[in-house]
Amino acid sequence: MVDIDEQFCAVRARSEALCVDLSAEDCNLQAMPETSPLKWHLAHTAWFFETFLLQPFQVDYAPENPAYAVLFNSYYNGIGAQYPREQRSLLSRPGMDEVLAYRHQVDAAVLELLACTAEEEMLERLELGLHHEAQHQELMLTDLKYNLFQNPLFPVYSAVPPAAPQGPAAALHFIDHPGGTVEIGHAGQGFAFDNEGPRHPQIIPPFRVANRLVTNGEFLEFVEDGGYANPAFWLADGWHEAQAQQLRHPLYWGRIDGAWFEYTLMGLRELDLAVPVAHVSLYEASAYAAWAGKRLPTEVEWETAAAAHAVTGNFVDAEALHPRAAPAGEEQFFGDCWEWTNSAYLPYPGFHAAAGAVSEYNGKFMGSQFVLRGGSCFSAEFHIRATYRNFFYAPDRWQCTGIRLADAQ
Amino acid sequence: MVDIDEQFCAVRARSEALCVDLSAEDCNLQAMPETSPLKWHLAHTAWFFETFLLQPFQVDYAPENPAYAVLFNSYYNGIGAQYPREQRSLLSRPGMDEVLAYRHQVDAAVLELLACTAEEEMLERLELGLHHEAQHQELMLTDLKYNLFQNPLFPVYSAVPPAAPQGPAAALHFIDHPGGTVEIGHAGQGFAFDNEGPRHPQIIPPFRVANRLVTNGEFLEFVEDGGYANPAFWLADGWHEAQAQQLRHPLYWGRIDGAWFEYTLMGLRELDLAVPVAHVSLYEASAYAAWAGKRLPTEVEWETAAAAHAVTGNFVDAEALHPRAAPAGEEQFFGDCWEWTNSAYLPYPGFHAAAGAVSEYNGKFMGSQFVLRGGSCFSAEFHIRATYRNFFYAPDRWQCTGIRLADAQ
Amino acid sequence: MVDIDEQFCAVRARSEALCVDLSAEDCNLQAMPETSPLKWHLAHTAWFFETFLLQPFQVDYAPENPAYAVLFNSYYNGIGAQYPREQRSLLSRPGMDEVLAYRHQVDAAVLELLACTAEEEMLERLELGLHHEAQHQELMLTDLKYNLFQNPLFPVYSAVPPAAPQGPAAALHFIDHPGGTVEIGHAGQGFAFDNEGPRHPQIIPPFRVANRLVTNGEFLEFVEDGGYANPAFWLADGWHEAQAQQLRHPLYWGRIDGAWFEYTLMGLRELDLAVPVAHVSLYEASAYAAWAGKRLPTEVEWETAAAAHAVTGNFVDAEALHPRAAPAGEEQFFGDCWEWTNSAYLPYPGFHAAAGAVSEYNGKFMGSQFVLRGGSCFSAEFHIRATYRNFFYAPDRWQCTGIRLADAQ
Amino acid sequence: MVDIDEQFCAVRARSEALCVDLSAEDCNLQAMPETSPLKWHLAHTAWFFETFLLQPFQVDYAPENPAYAVLFNSYYNGIGAQYPREQRSLLSRPGMDEVLAYRHQVDAAVLELLACTAEEEMLERLELGLHHEAQHQELMLTDLKYNLFQNPLFPVYSAVPPAAPQGPAAALHFIDHPGGTVEIGHAGQGFAFDNEGPRHPQIIPPFRVANRLVTNGEFLEFVEDGGYANPAFWLADGWHEAQAQQLRHPLYWGRIDGAWFEYTLMGLRELDLAVPVAHVSLYEASAYAAWAGKRLPTEVEWETAAAAHAVTGNFVDAEALHPRAAPAGEEQFFGDCWEWTNSAYLPYPGFHAAAGAVSEYNGKFMGSQFVLRGGSCFSAEFHIRATYRNFFYAPDRWQCTGIRLADAQ
Repeated sequence: MVDIDEQFCAVRARSEALCVDLSAEDCNLQAMPETSPLKWHLAHTAWFFETFLLQPFQVDYAPENPAYAVLFNSYYNGIGAQYPREQRSLLSRPGMDEVLAYRHQVDAAVLELLACTAEEEMLERLELGLHHEAQHQELMLTDLKYNLFQNPLFPVYSAVPPAAPQGPAAALHFIDHPGGTVEIGHAGQGFAFDNEGPRHPQIIPPFRVANRLVTNGEFLEFVEDGGYANPAFWLADGWHEAQAQQLRHPLYWGRIDGAWFEYTLMGLRELDLAVPVAHVSLYEASAYAAWAGKRLPTEVEWETAAAAHAVTGNFVDAEALHPRAAPAGEEQFFGDCWEWTNSAYLPYPGFHAAAGAVSEYNGKFMGSQFVLRGGSCFSAEFHIRATYRNFFYAPDRWQCTGIRLADAQ
Repeated sequence: MVDIDEQFCAVRARSEALCVDLSAEDCNLQAMPETSPLKWHLAHTAWFFETFLLQPFQVDYAPENPAYAVLFNSYYNGIGAQYPREQRSLLSRPGMDEVLAYRHQVDAAVLELLACTAEEEMLERLELGLHHEAQHQELMLTDLKYNLFQNPLFPVYSAVPPAAPQGPAAALHFIDHPGGTVEIGHAGQGFAFDNEGPRHPQIIPPFRVANRLVTNGEFLEFVEDGGYANPAFWLADGWHEAQAQQLRHPLYWGRIDGAWFEYTLMGLRELDLAVPVAHVSLYEASAYAAWAGKRLPTEVEWETAAAAHAVTGNFVDAEALHPRAAPAGEEQFFGDCWEWTNSAYLPYPGFHAAAGAVSEYNGKFMGSQFVLRGGSCFSAEFHIRATYRNFFYAPDRWQCTGIRLADAQ
Repeated sequence: MVDIDEQFCAVRARSEALCVDLSAEDCNLQAMPETSPLKWHLAHTAWFFETFLLQPFQVDYAPENPAYAVLFNSYYNGIGAQYPREQRSLLSRPGMDEVLAYRHQVDAAVLELLACTAEEEMLERLELGLHHEAQHQELMLTDLKYNLFQNPLFPVYSAVPPAAPQGPAAALHFIDHPGGTVEIGHAGQGFAFDNEGPRHPQIIPPFRVANRLVTNGEFLEFVEDGGYANPAFWLADGWHEAQAQQLRHPLYWGRIDGAWFEYTLMGLRELDLAVPVAHVSLYEASAYAAWAGKRLPTEVEWETAAAAHAVTGNFVDAEALHPRAAPAGEEQFFGDCWEWTNSAYLPYPGFHAAAGAVSEYNGKFMGSQFVLRGGSCFSAEFHIRATYRNFFYAPDRWQCTGIRLADAQ
Repeated sequence: MVDIDEQFCAVRARSEALCVDLSAEDCNLQAMPETSPLKWHLAHTAWFFETFLLQPFQVDYAPENPAYAVLFNSYYNGIGAQYPREQRSLLSRPGMDEVLAYRHQVDAAVLELLACTAEEEMLERLELGLHHEAQHQELMLTDLKYNLFQNPLFPVYSAVPPAAPQGPAAALHFIDHPGGTVEIGHAGQGFAFDNEGPRHPQIIPPFRVANRLVTNGEFLEFVEDGGYANPAFWLADGWHEAQAQQLRHPLYWGRIDGAWFEYTLMGLRELDLAVPVAHVSLYEASAYAAWAGKRLPTEVEWETAAAAHAVTGNFVDAEALHPRAAPAGEEQFFGDCWEWTNSAYLPYPGFHAAAGAVSEYNGKFMGSQFVLRGGSCFSAEFHIRATYRNFFYAPDRWQCTGIRLADAQ
């Protein structure tokens, strides 16, 4: 049982490590309902292990604090009521120190449980908890970035020295795929979320996908060509959103004295034209693709194209905390930016959500969201697979989302 | 050219016939942004012929009133600015009489054009205009129903005598389909919208679909079983919507002194348990299906199951203006209620929108909406096909939308 | 009884005469919650006589239509529930013809009552009803102006030929008043609303008021001097409102190709610099006064200055339907524009609202509104007195409201 | 200069002392736009001295951090732009430690200035700054109470042991005042805000005011008599607000298992019927008075009645942090609760705001607010006078506001 203990401790420790250079005030920010305070993420992930691992599998387990069942339940209606999501930053109590103590108590109880039993169902739930925590670690970084960005002082999160302006990205070209009957979805060994299966065949025409993500420089051409002012490129809902929000450029871009800047977790930086454009909505991605005379890939195309590649890339493990310019020969399917697909997040044929409250994890969100693929510079490498289906709403921009172009042959 | 002339005149006359028993005040109601005044529909459909038929194909055509280009443009950004959609009921001028005169001037100009030329592209555009008008005729009835419903007097639109309570609907059973490689989408002769193509193959597992629509009686069991109060049956967004809007039953249902009633275009009527439930959102449809242990069909499944049936049923041509109980042996694929599918409204592989402003018709809405199939009691029979893809947002309820259950075998 | 019969018939007929050149669609517009459809005003004023005159004073009076008690009750909680104010334009039924028939039935019943009895309390209630109707006649014109203005066709209500540009307004000067102990408020014979009493003494310092209203030309100087962009002139709430609504000029002003225009009931006209500025909020009035180095009068000052003047001026009786330039020697205390005072609408010392539902007329509005004085070009002369206290919220602009400057000596 | 130094240091220290038992997270809460984080109050009051004392009076003074001119400017348009008020809790940086350091730097600079000069205008500005800080100290407590209240854990701010349930309040009776010509407003020596003058005469009828504030027990009778459900007692705007917010009781009251509780800075406590009702809006105060057959006093009546009393009472100096039951013979004009008057916050005759940005302090708020008098248990005794005019909007409830009844004789 050494391995699983160690992995558990490592994942849990990393959540706290993300906060080590932050103040308690930093950790309690919530600039919009979608971005929870980091402290809340820390408490929620402890509550998850308490609720879905300790309570079912540890005899006579008594929760640390019954009030936490309401405060730190995200959306599990099967468990009970939830403190309103948009008010999470109003929870100054429990304080950061109490939340860390709560985590450590839960950690100790989990390790005690692991010492006593190796029941398979328990171990599967533990693994689910670790991947759940990995998702929240990614959210901690993307939420923090959004929350800090509201401060005109443009706070610096990471003291990582700014990378030297990166060499030019590899030249853009398109790679042909023959289409036909392909298979997508998870099957066999190894962890996957329920929404990644069943593996199933699909028939698709021949297609092409770009060899890398769209860069800031390429997207700037769209901006400067009036792309945000021309409805011809936009989906109707996207155009409406762009007008209502007065969008003129990606979320973290800004113009100061005629020069373009981009806010990063390392602070405000001059816009690096070689790195992938990030933090665009599906609407912006789709409008860019239309302007470029291309389109976004479907998730079938994406998975078909990506499946042959190793799951390596610019993940959070590299601690760059920002997308990198694509070197020649590297296709960026994994890491850097989540890639919008033009596929709705809906069940695969034959999908069935698991029973119980933990099943609320994925299935109930299969509605009006879009699928993103490949992970980003904020994702952990161990957490990403070619079959991984992430999902956000079309207008969402605070995730590290980018663009890969596709086309018919 | 006699036939097309006659068809044109018949379709155009029917729009006006819909208003013949209404006052000018009735025709100018707009209870929510989505429901336009009937007068506006009348003017917009004239503007459509003026803009997309007369202006391109009639030499030196001068529009009746240049201001109408703004007032009666719905969403064609390629044409120009639009009067705000949510304010259409503020247009008391032009009055109903002026709008009818405008229509007749356009009609005369179209007939004159038809007398001079039979150019194929022009005829195709004319046919598009007639189907466009058929869509608006359906909206006129659904919008009117919603608009009149806001009046506590429950106004009667149609003097059709209420049908005798209908015999029991056919017993519910499920019909097996083998799945495999199927083809969907329009190809070949006959009119279809661009979004119905290209025809293409899909691989699907075996499935089953119900032999008829879900009835009011069946849906009432869901209501009385607490279906609206149990999040386990609902998509997350649907549950949020149901809470925010305090939904307790379908749009037009109400309870008076313990009895259930339903508002119809014939006025308020006691709820007829045998007829299909109508005016439910995708969320309600999906929650009902979950409660019933079933699911909604995908659009591929629906088209596969429906393609073998003749396009007949309870359409607006029958003037019932309300769904009817399914007689034994009639599967209700066409007419009665639009059927929610669990498919997003997205482009088929290889879809390309046509060039020009008229192309804004379909493609730019391929985002976060869901596909509905089969037409309703408010649709014209000539307008509906097995391949026809209608689309609305998941929360929408003012269309005549119903539920067909599906399942794996 | 001849006189009161005649007066009743004349007032009632005038409400209908206001609509004679309008369509039923025009009469059912409601562009914001505060502006009711004219048809609703017609029905509500009939309901007022039915509810407060016929029901209490006519034995066995049965209302024409019980549903009207909800549909046409404005805000009398003592009577019962009210149809939502902001949805009045959704009442296409009863139609304009039915509402006129309803009025005529009520008229007949009132005349019958008058033929039978001359009880003093009944006659007082009748007089109240006539003044209530006069108020609604004024609202019909101001609401209509606002509602028609939303139409980019700038509809014309009155065929009155545009007045020739008016001679220059009288030169501006200030008239001294000695202050001291003055008396304001209604006492003695003649109709007045309860809120005009009791008459009571007040001590005020010497003051000065302008000899006429501020003109369009004077207000234009404020606009062109950047008055709307300089917070120093504005009340804090006014500045917030001006920013939130992006105000740049009075409600009905607009600029076309560099020239200023003003919407009137006679259509769009070039801005006449000599006539009083109208349709400004208290905030705009107050900001203008601050820019001019002056202030607004209090209601005590206003009444003290106005009391000596005859109640004559540019009232609706003159049918100009627009403010007029002040001839030399005419101080414009009455008619033209309601004059904002810097006094809150609060009870006079010793005020007591009458008993019963009819007492909801005035007292319950004594909160956060401001007092306006003097009537406007939309008020009936018989309806206005020096003691008359009108009241609106500080941001309101759709009434015909203008500015008289005041100052300390 | 010893005295003013000491007073300055004492006032400044007290602001920080208020936070000593709070975490940085507690100090950064903002549950609604009106309630600023305590950290922001600390920084803003330092900025006030920097901007209005050090910059004008200290030669070559350079602000600590130019960005603070935006971040910590509340509403002084004359100084420049302001960070959005409703986003103040998004400022995790500068942290609490940095803000305290900023305060201490400003303190040192002020003391240095005081050591060099005793210019009268400078000393007046210093005194203004101290009263400004006293106001913010009161806001710190009322804002904190509101912000902590959002947390279902009902956090405890002060470890003060709960007072024993207090003896019955003095019996209610009314004290006659003869009215006539009275004088109100500040004149002569001693600090006062500009809005308290000029002192001026007013003529008022005889009146009576209650010998103490309305108690929780008395207000509970109103609640249990259906006071919140009966529009007859309410101002129209108050009724609308009560319906829209679904008000059923004062802000901090709640019912748990049939018993009434009240949230206080000492945590949740059973409702003490003897102490004054607090945290009611003007609307609630006015509705209660109407139910009781009385009314609220005007500010003239209040000042006339209060002027004879010494400014002593349950102020923050007593550290009770909650209203106290009125002992017999103590009229509670000062301390305990701010008392709503039925007077609008408008300028006294002859009022002129001072020149410069600091004049934005009072005058620009003279609009739609109501006057409150007498200070509360959160006010500092040195800060309150009989002529002191506080002002809030009629719906506001988060201040410690109570009710004194008045009546005609």
